[in-house]
Amino acid sequence: MVLKDLCRGGVSPPFTFNRNARSNIMRNLKLTVEYDGTNYCGWQKQKNSLSIQQLIEDNLSKILDHKVNLKATGRTDAGVHAKQQIVNLFTSSNIPLRNLKKAINSVLPDDIAVKNIKQVSNDFDAQYSPKTKIYRYSIYTGKNKMVFDRKYVAHYPVSLDINAIRHGAKYIIGKHDFSCFRSSNSPTKTSVRTVKKIDIKVKGDYLFIDIEADGFLYNMVRIIVGTLLEVGRGKRNPSSMKELIESKKRTLAGQTAKAHGLCLLRVKY
Amino acid sequence: MVLKDLCRGGVSPPFTFNRNARSNIMRNLKLTVEYDGTNYCGWQKQKNSLSIQQLIEDNLSKILDHKVNLKATGRTDAGVHAKQQIVNLFTSSNIPLRNLKKAINSVLPDDIAVKNIKQVSNDFDAQYSPKTKIYRYSIYTGKNKMVFDRKYVAHYPVSLDINAIRHGAKYIIGKHDFSCFRSSNSPTKTSVRTVKKIDIKVKGDYLFIDIEADGFLYNMVRIIVGTLLEVGRGKRNPSSMKELIESKKRTLAGQTAKAHGLCLLRVKY
Repeated sequence: MVLKDLCRGGVSPPFTFNRNARSNIMRNLKLTVEYDGTNYCGWQKQKNSLSIQQLIEDNLSKILDHKVNLKATGRTDAGVHAKQQIVNLFTSSNIPLRNLKKAINSVLPDDIAVKNIKQVSNDFDAQYSPKTKIYRYSIYTGKNKMVFDRKYVAHYPVSLDINAIRHGAKYIIGKHDFSCFRSSNSPTKTSVRTVKKIDIKVKGDYLFIDIEADGFLYNMVRIIVGTLLEVGRGKRNPSSMKELIESKKRTLAGQTAKAHGLCLLRVKY
Repeated sequence: MVLKDLCRGGVSPPFTFNRNARSNIMRNLKLTVEYDGTNYCGWQKQKNSLSIQQLIEDNLSKILDHKVNLKATGRTDAGVHAKQQIVNLFTSSNIPLRNLKKAINSVLPDDIAVKNIKQVSNDFDAQYSPKTKIYRYSIYTGKNKMVFDRKYVAHYPVSLDINAIRHGAKYIIGKHDFSCFRSSNSPTKTSVRTVKKIDIKVKGDYLFIDIEADGFLYNMVRIIVGTLLEVGRGKRNPSSMKELIESKKRTLAGQTAKAHGLCLLRVKY
């Protein structure tokens, strides 16, 4: 099989390389990936569902001519997007990184893009090396039906008290047991995480909630947002967030906000 | 048939009205419509293809219980979007406009939204009343694959001389015979139009070309943009635009830029 078979529409990419070129040196490659999660079951591989991980691994395996295992920074859920998902893989292939980037982008569907590939030291691990990651939750509070943002912004056509939301959010910052913001089927052992920052921006009828933490429990951002929206509607007192966290009870927190408003925005080292 | 049958998911809208209520007074209704044109053959009805006009007319006809004919400001092509398409229709129905807006939005797919409905004087005509309309063409000149903008912004990964584009655009402003910027299958009689303004904005790797005119020939904006991009690449001299317009020859102009970068942005009265 030649590389051009991997390209949609049979168009040859403007480069060639020896697919069998191998080196004794294993390179650790760090990829920055952007995706629209609308059509996927999430980042992580699942049986009988199409995941972003599966698509990238399968295509990289064909290009690099060996089985590829990706590690990723964020296990984004079905429908969740990423502006900056970080993944890494080890390869013995000699392919120049510029060519690898062109090759993988030419075979991935148009809702997934590899923005950058660089070689990193062997101890870099996309899952464990990041210090913090930032998720953004985007909300439109206007009354009108959304068209252009409909897949990336949650529609919440309600008047919100932004000061109350900002007040409530302050109680989340710091190192806490966040059991109350964890979905019941969360597989992680400890539910202690450190939230570094919550940034709440308003632009017209749009509200953006950026949460930076050293790690996130399953559905944590979406449950925090669902709870803060109840604060914004006046259904919860901002200061009740303190007791809620101390209770460690998921049942006392708000609803899980919809997946499509969530995006893995940035990863920090 | 009751109105709730028209609603997806069988959810009743939070209002009711007498569908047979009729008045002797015909009301002229002006609708502001927004749409993502990706999945349609364009605004205008066509046999064997799904148009935005057809979808809105069919659904309004069911809600108003009489045949509806829409007139529109811009006949946007397949894949072209609208932030502000203006349409009008006459109805004898007494339905309150707020209810009509809710009803039509609840049955239209999520890529079409009616943003506003108001009653206007009977001499208002969406096609002929507007003084000017503004189309925006959006371009991404960066090297990376686009994900989130891929359906709304044309990818043109080339270094452009923006000053040359601005210089070339000046020759287009004014009243001219724009035959050189008209697709050969254009049905209009005269090819004289007045371009009021061309506004060229750069934001990082994005370029926005807004063209305001009293009317547009078939594919006019897309051919102007395709020609200006050749000016920006240095393939054409900016001042050659003058001779090009005077030539009235479509064959001397540039390529027709892709449909998905184009959007009917605003209509002025």
